[in-house]
Amino acid sequence: MLDGTVITCSAPVNIAVIKYWGKRDDELILPVNSSLSVTLHQDQLKTTTTIACSRDFQEDRIWINGREEDINQSRLQSCLREMRRLARKRSGDGDPAHGVAGLSHKVHICSVNNFPTAAGLASSASGYACLVYTLSRLFGVEGELSAVARQGSGSACRSMYGGFVQWKIGERADGKDSLAEQVQPETHWPELRVLVLVVNAQRKHIGSTSGMQTSVKTSSLLKHRAECLVSGQMDKMMRAINTKDFSAFGELTMQDSNQFHATCLDTYPPIFYLSDVSRQIINLVHCYNHHYREIKVAYTFDAGPNAVIFTLQEHLPEFVQVVRYFFPPESNEEQFLKGLSVDSVPVSESLKAAIGMEPVANGISYIISTKVKVPGSSMWGLSGTLATGNLLFMGPFP
Amino acid sequence: MLDGTVITCSAPVNIAVIKYWGKRDDELILPVNSSLSVTLHQDQLKTTTTIACSRDFQEDRIWINGREEDINQSRLQSCLREMRRLARKRSGDGDPAHGVAGLSHKVHICSVNNFPTAAGLASSASGYACLVYTLSRLFGVEGELSAVARQGSGSACRSMYGGFVQWKIGERADGKDSLAEQVQPETHWPELRVLVLVVNAQRKHIGSTSGMQTSVKTSSLLKHRAECLVSGQMDKMMRAINTKDFSAFGELTMQDSNQFHATCLDTYPPIFYLSDVSRQIINLVHCYNHHYREIKVAYTFDAGPNAVIFTLQEHLPEFVQVVRYFFPPESNEEQFLKGLSVDSVPVSESLKAAIGMEPVANGISYIISTKVKVPGSSMWGLSGTLATGNLLFMGPFP
Repeated sequence: MLDGTVITCSAPVNIAVIKYWGKRDDELILPVNSSLSVTLHQDQLKTTTTIACSRDFQEDRIWINGREEDINQSRLQSCLREMRRLARKRSGDGDPAHGVAGLSHKVHICSVNNFPTAAGLASSASGYACLVYTLSRLFGVEGELSAVARQGSGSACRSMYGGFVQWKIGERADGKDSLAEQVQPETHWPELRVLVLVVNAQRKHIGSTSGMQTSVKTSSLLKHRAECLVSGQMDKMMRAINTKDFSAFGELTMQDSNQFHATCLDTYPPIFYLSDVSRQIINLVHCYNHHYREIKVAYTFDAGPNAVIFTLQEHLPEFVQVVRYFFPPESNEEQFLKGLSVDSVPVSESLKAAIGMEPVANGISYIISTKVKVPGSSMWGLSGTLATGNLLFMGPFP
Repeated sequence: MLDGTVITCSAPVNIAVIKYWGKRDDELILPVNSSLSVTLHQDQLKTTTTIACSRDFQEDRIWINGREEDINQSRLQSCLREMRRLARKRSGDGDPAHGVAGLSHKVHICSVNNFPTAAGLASSASGYACLVYTLSRLFGVEGELSAVARQGSGSACRSMYGGFVQWKIGERADGKDSLAEQVQPETHWPELRVLVLVVNAQRKHIGSTSGMQTSVKTSSLLKHRAECLVSGQMDKMMRAINTKDFSAFGELTMQDSNQFHATCLDTYPPIFYLSDVSRQIINLVHCYNHHYREIKVAYTFDAGPNAVIFTLQEHLPEFVQVVRYFFPPESNEEQFLKGLSVDSVPVSESLKAAIGMEPVANGISYIISTKVKVPGSSMWGLSGTLATGNLLFMGPFP
């Protein structure tokens, strides 16, 4: 690795369909149960990270979405430390082409998301996955990296793979077996589509880290879920994905989302992530599926009010119109649906009657339409001598 | 019992602090776990039932809140059948003073509540308890009656006693040991006070009977709660009541309410009884207690959005003003607080800041202030020959 190297990579967001909530080890970020997620397409949602390495840098620094942040934050330090350790191990293997020179250099890291933070989509997963992946390209580290990403943010380990990914709980206290692995590649289920319904920003909610700590401490229902229920739910979910059984996939997804939020309510003090609009979306989905006597659409909610909807491509046109009808946007209609385009199909009067809700004006800010994708396909690297000040988006240099 | 007897009795409402949710037998109404409640004062909340018995009546009939209802409804039939069976058993004991004449007569039943149905307070408990108690006075049946009331509506068995009452789950399949019994009389904790916060009527929610059936069928968390958690929670609750430990009583009450609602959310499809205002009340209570570093106030919610607040008399004046401040009534302020009067105490600015919520105009319709009381103290009976049409409130006679 030459001095002045600059590498840029991107990493995807993932949405858990079997939720991670609760740690058995706060330092190493080891979970109380396994989890399973779907990796989303980077065209619509991704983190892009550029890292420059130079002997001229006095210290490590990081800029996130244009603002310098504290590089000494412990999780950032965990990732940097672990990647440097792996890099040293690699150069310790004796390959003369790999000098240790770069390893003593400081790095400047610049990270941006192509989706707004206000969207409430967890950017820690894509953010830390990107950081770890970009460092691996910079330091020439190969092999298993999900364990490092995990130490930045638990769900980040799942963003190291595409398609359908599980994060196995692991049994070791040192966490070396608490890793992500791919269940199926994204080519497995091309008909699967995803809508992110961004709900109008409301009151600030409890952050995940502190929320799940309180849940682990106070919720007996969470303890039971983690010890006795998730394992079976993981098996059923993997079976549903492997057989592309959308009905089973959808039902399990909705049940797991509800169970996660149930454990939040069983926390003391209770945690409420679902807003009134979230509940109305849930009601809409159940009425919609009931009308067709079929699970055509499924919802899942993370630690916030936004809904992530899974469906099959054939159902998208009508369902998007249904959402638009019952959650009419306030204005600038063209901005209401972002991402992959969706055909328009009229909503029948019988369907409107079957759902029977009062339309909720301005309940949903906008929709992002996306799909499942493998990460790394838009990875690109730049190498070359660094000229101070040339790379404006890297922020100010000393 | 002479022909033409008319008896009038009243019975109280009770509020569960360890919730009943789920049956192991739908016919006999046997629960999946024990429950514990507080019986409320009849001056503010009660059902009054008058029963007339006459050889001239062609059939049993019932009027509830002024409207004739279907006497053949199975739970009404259970109560009538059981009480007549007990009455026959009694007269079969050979006491010559007790003829069986009255038993072959039909009854006309008239039942009214002194609280509006719109208040969302479960009137089935007070209603069936009153029916059973009044029938027992009419038929001269003594002894254990909670098992009969239970067959009308599960929670009705707890209204057969005053003060603090437990409904034991029972082990027998025939339900003969699934009974209510008093834990402490109402004289035990005279400082305990109750506020019912009647939230603005919103969308109709799922009825308890069908809701709990779906929960039993679909919620693993409910199964675990019933099998493993409630028993220990009951012990702790009884200990808190016996020692008048409000802090423990309050915390257990809030936790059990949240856990019950958590199992509703873990139901499929999920059941939401808490409204946005309910959640804001929960938040208010936690902020209020946090400000004082003490559990001064506790909430519990049944299968609807209304809050029942428990507190000690000394905290009432300030807390009522806090509720009024953060949930300002729309108009007719005098009607905002009903029931027992409460002194007025100003709310300090630091307390308002500590709670830090935006006031929610018109979130709460009104407050009922009440306390714990023993039932039966306002029981009164009338005997005499029935003149057709004399008793207007009995509804039309043939």
